[in-house]
Amino acid sequence: MGDVSMQTKPRRSFASDNNAGVHPSVMEAMAAANDGHVIAYGDDVYTARAVKKFREHLGKDTQVFFVFGGTGANILGLKAATQPHHAVICAETAHINVDECGAPEKFTGCKLLGVRTDDGKLTVEHIKPLLHEVGFEHHVQPRVISISQATEMGTVYKPRELKALASFAHDHGLLLHMDGARIANAAASLDVKLRAITRDAGVDILSFGGAKNGMMYGEAVVFFNQKLAEDFKYTRKQGAQLPSKMRFISAQFEALLTDDLWRRNAQHANRMAQMLAAALAGIPQITVTQKVEANGVFALVPKRSVPLLQKKYFFYIWNEEKSEVRLMTSFDTTEGDITNFVSLVKKTVR
Amino acid sequence: MGDVSMQTKPRRSFASDNNAGVHPSVMEAMAAANDGHVIAYGDDVYTARAVKKFREHLGKDTQVFFVFGGTGANILGLKAATQPHHAVICAETAHINVDECGAPEKFTGCKLLGVRTDDGKLTVEHIKPLLHEVGFEHHVQPRVISISQATEMGTVYKPRELKALASFAHDHGLLLHMDGARIANAAASLDVKLRAITRDAGVDILSFGGAKNGMMYGEAVVFFNQKLAEDFKYTRKQGAQLPSKMRFISAQFEALLTDDLWRRNAQHANRMAQMLAAALAGIPQITVTQKVEANGVFALVPKRSVPLLQKKYFFYIWNEEKSEVRLMTSFDTTEGDITNFVSLVKKTVR
Amino acid sequence: MGDVSMQTKPRRSFASDNNAGVHPSVMEAMAAANDGHVIAYGDDVYTARAVKKFREHLGKDTQVFFVFGGTGANILGLKAATQPHHAVICAETAHINVDECGAPEKFTGCKLLGVRTDDGKLTVEHIKPLLHEVGFEHHVQPRVISISQATEMGTVYKPRELKALASFAHDHGLLLHMDGARIANAAASLDVKLRAITRDAGVDILSFGGAKNGMMYGEAVVFFNQKLAEDFKYTRKQGAQLPSKMRFISAQFEALLTDDLWRRNAQHANRMAQMLAAALAGIPQITVTQKVEANGVFALVPKRSVPLLQKKYFFYIWNEEKSEVRLMTSFDTTEGDITNFVSLVKKTVR
Amino acid sequence: MGDVSMQTKPRRSFASDNNAGVHPSVMEAMAAANDGHVIAYGDDVYTARAVKKFREHLGKDTQVFFVFGGTGANILGLKAATQPHHAVICAETAHINVDECGAPEKFTGCKLLGVRTDDGKLTVEHIKPLLHEVGFEHHVQPRVISISQATEMGTVYKPRELKALASFAHDHGLLLHMDGARIANAAASLDVKLRAITRDAGVDILSFGGAKNGMMYGEAVVFFNQKLAEDFKYTRKQGAQLPSKMRFISAQFEALLTDDLWRRNAQHANRMAQMLAAALAGIPQITVTQKVEANGVFALVPKRSVPLLQKKYFFYIWNEEKSEVRLMTSFDTTEGDITNFVSLVKKTVR
Repeated sequence: MGDVSMQTKPRRSFASDNNAGVHPSVMEAMAAANDGHVIAYGDDVYTARAVKKFREHLGKDTQVFFVFGGTGANILGLKAATQPHHAVICAETAHINVDECGAPEKFTGCKLLGVRTDDGKLTVEHIKPLLHEVGFEHHVQPRVISISQATEMGTVYKPRELKALASFAHDHGLLLHMDGARIANAAASLDVKLRAITRDAGVDILSFGGAKNGMMYGEAVVFFNQKLAEDFKYTRKQGAQLPSKMRFISAQFEALLTDDLWRRNAQHANRMAQMLAAALAGIPQITVTQKVEANGVFALVPKRSVPLLQKKYFFYIWNEEKSEVRLMTSFDTTEGDITNFVSLVKKTVR
Repeated sequence: MGDVSMQTKPRRSFASDNNAGVHPSVMEAMAAANDGHVIAYGDDVYTARAVKKFREHLGKDTQVFFVFGGTGANILGLKAATQPHHAVICAETAHINVDECGAPEKFTGCKLLGVRTDDGKLTVEHIKPLLHEVGFEHHVQPRVISISQATEMGTVYKPRELKALASFAHDHGLLLHMDGARIANAAASLDVKLRAITRDAGVDILSFGGAKNGMMYGEAVVFFNQKLAEDFKYTRKQGAQLPSKMRFISAQFEALLTDDLWRRNAQHANRMAQMLAAALAGIPQITVTQKVEANGVFALVPKRSVPLLQKKYFFYIWNEEKSEVRLMTSFDTTEGDITNFVSLVKKTVR
Repeated sequence: MGDVSMQTKPRRSFASDNNAGVHPSVMEAMAAANDGHVIAYGDDVYTARAVKKFREHLGKDTQVFFVFGGTGANILGLKAATQPHHAVICAETAHINVDECGAPEKFTGCKLLGVRTDDGKLTVEHIKPLLHEVGFEHHVQPRVISISQATEMGTVYKPRELKALASFAHDHGLLLHMDGARIANAAASLDVKLRAITRDAGVDILSFGGAKNGMMYGEAVVFFNQKLAEDFKYTRKQGAQLPSKMRFISAQFEALLTDDLWRRNAQHANRMAQMLAAALAGIPQITVTQKVEANGVFALVPKRSVPLLQKKYFFYIWNEEKSEVRLMTSFDTTEGDITNFVSLVKKTVR
Repeated sequence: MGDVSMQTKPRRSFASDNNAGVHPSVMEAMAAANDGHVIAYGDDVYTARAVKKFREHLGKDTQVFFVFGGTGANILGLKAATQPHHAVICAETAHINVDECGAPEKFTGCKLLGVRTDDGKLTVEHIKPLLHEVGFEHHVQPRVISISQATEMGTVYKPRELKALASFAHDHGLLLHMDGARIANAAASLDVKLRAITRDAGVDILSFGGAKNGMMYGEAVVFFNQKLAEDFKYTRKQGAQLPSKMRFISAQFEALLTDDLWRRNAQHANRMAQMLAAALAGIPQITVTQKVEANGVFALVPKRSVPLLQKKYFFYIWNEEKSEVRLMTSFDTTEGDITNFVSLVKKTVR
């Protein structure tokens, strides 16, 4: 907590979609839920209504459990599917592999098998070599394929790519887990319904993201495979992810899933990323390095420009050696943010 | 999620102080924090201000870490103080011992040694016999004494009782952990400053409660012993308790700690408990079973009355055999709630 | 490792049945197994023969896994039956509860619910009150009843007592685990076959002890419930309990289970305990405090005598306040050991 | 346990150095230790003498703890050095990374960062890129560099290579852990004293292997850094690695460390590997793929030959695609074993 913290005028940010605030409709829903007494821990009308919304989007026997945050959603969902001697196969760049401070290993006891990919997307060919030693007691036993949709590289799995993974998984006794911190951006990008890239594609367990799509806090662990949900309420409590005043998460999700707010938020963020990528691609000193399919833009930026840009905008350096930066847009990124940033880029790279 | 969930008119509740909503000033502070972009995970001005408030109340070198919930605060705080071969001594009735679904054992690996007490309060005499086998490798090694202030039985430790525990702990190489989910109620009850029952009494680690005192979500892990806080940021992240949009917890705490809102909320809840207890004590068929020192009332109620009362009010049966119920008040309990409830009691016990 | 270690003449011991050495027939079997190369980790002829022996004693579809030690056997067996949100019900005096340095909690994540008993034996009445909160997510969920046979107090469950526990367990969705570190002493005491107090009594999982019955090292985790054994080979390896040169454990077990060596060893130890107890009971200053049903004797001994006795014999004080000592006999305790000890006792108590 | 188990004549094996039996001098020492009663768990004269031997070899303030097996030694040693948010850097081929069924992750909670190497040996250059994000709470924090000596690829670190790693580690707040399952083979190969490649090279924690050097069972966790050993006796017990009849491990180690039996065993195994490698290298259809510095030989063998060879000899296929096999020699491999095997190879590759 250095000097930055005492700033009085927040700067604009491309650091992460969680640097944004809360969508006004979500705020209103929270305020409306602040009405009298309700039973804690989810046995309330707001939660019942939010679960109903989830089922409308994802199918009627979907099991939904709200939790505090994204890391919590991931590790609890993985725990529901694994024993400690199991392995979780994921991309080397997966959030669970690099950005959760070892929470998956600590909570599940499992080893993560991180696979090198070009674009953050796993394919069946990546996974096959990891199944060689199934049944050999000295080796961890693969049990889950975990993918991120959209990926940490801003790319998106197409429904047929998901189906290929799911059917390979199920043919080999594995489960398909999806870290959907940015599921809304993926569905918006593909212009499909949420269920097209989850239930209908064969996903077994889904972390459904709220915070990066305009909520204040709250994610959902979603099971399409009923059996996995059986003891999950205990896992959630033991995992310290059972919110007492649950109604306030539920109200947020209800707002997000009503009148396609989730999609509008995601479409906007995606559009801003497209606009940003197009503008950057037009600058000769900049190279956009990944397909821009969701709300993230990866680009090589001249080394000396980076600190100049960071004086006015928050964003992270992805790869120090290559001077590759990551720029995330969100539901509240404005066209002005883009044009101002791009003109600053132009100035600094000259 | 049965019938109760679909109720359209929330009933009033004495089930828990977390059945209440959010205090209006806290809601306002959250809305005010929803302004533009700030860095996620706590490197923001709201968090800096909230930490400053904590230090005003608890001392200037206090280390404060915000987390999502109370179970999270407890298990992370305990983890910071223990190795898996350690034991945590607590009252048999402690929240960590009975109401966290084994989260402390799972997260820390430690055994909890639950001590039978009359009123939820530990004394040095309770603890001495547990130190017999220190140094013997077959036995877990006591490392932490964990107490709840106020206790789960609605009782409150006096400063000198805390000091006696702290000095015994420190003399024996132990640390004193306080589950302060209701620390505000305790300080209000004793009419002392927060630091009088924490830092100044020798507490090493404190879970500082927000949700039961009018916040929506968010607790703080507070270290008075700097050394214990050293690696805590990693423990928090690995424990899935690092909120991304931290500013919204920080804003709540700032509101609570400003102009004594925390104390006013707690005083009100405590007063309502006194009023309730006094009224119940006047009914011959009812026996109040614990001293009412905070915001909980325990009472023996005739068995046939309980379901009749539960039709209109949420509350829990504490001891089925004895027909003992627990009634909690909160910052938003009204005098009308009490008088209505008490007259219903009178009707049902006749 | 103080002065004691450097003693050149070992004293005789009543400290534990593991202060004895190895039975000569067991030593011979180990030497005989030291012949050329065999595959490591159990895929060898010695292991196949030992497993066959186990099945002769315990039933033909019994699943048997050899491990290094008794704590390992217990925690792995419990892990096979539990998820971390489960609870294990046991006597407060159980080895898993007090003498394994928290290994069960660390390895399984579960809470142990220790029940106070008079004689180390659990009954259905002890367990019933612990099932009140089944289904309530804030509480750990009882899943296993773990008993010791013989108990740590030297007492023995009769077949009908075991059946009562097993059928209660199974009626309530629980499993019955037996810590059989001294299973041989129990079967010898009751003069029944091993299967009468295990499979036929409804036990689901058994730690079958070797070291306390004349082996050098090695215990077996035995499953009567096939389903529980399914993934156990991975749990054993991950639990660091898969011996590489497995044949040497197997050879020991084969020896023990051949020509009733196990029973002869146990009978001898039990008889020595009876002899010791009878002699002590005849001394007015001594009170034997537990029924002597296996190979342990508990007795109140005048405080001043204890250090005098400990100069010549190893044994442990069980209860310092009461000056209660525990005296264990083993397969190699001699009548001379007993008479010498008893006459020393007589001298010291005068 | 298929047909193989019921073989009556053990075949010869190059599968692993743990397919060998026990050296006769070690067996004698065990028999000699089987004399009367001694205190369990290590407080005995045999253990005191064995520890003394270790200190003669490794330095006088060395802390030594005996455990049952190699996986146990590794995970307990790593636990002594880490908190769950730490990372352990190792070669991708390390035993801890691939052959312990996730035991390190389960027991320590840490993530392992496996580095691709050509020959199983880590260098400073491998490690540097993994230290980029030190201090960033979202990432696990490197704490230990773990190397195997000799490596799983049959290669050996020279003292100056070890010193380079140790001093890099210590400069960056890391510890150096050595999996010395084959430490004897390494020291024999380099013709140096044990302390030259451990204490004197800057190693902090060592798993000292017994079973692969002629013992029946038993390994030692050795600390050169006293501070790390402080609470280790509890970790050992909680890790289910405290042998009750400790004297029999101690007696084995005493035998091994007396009159350089350890070195003679290792020299023999190494020489057999050299002989085997030389003979195989002379066969045109065979390619030896790794330097042969200890007791392992890696070679490409024509695919059709492998099953023919496996009919008469146990050994493992290291890399299915490349038809690379691993051949291990041991203290009891004979020249006849080599010549017979090589002539069979010659026959099958024709």
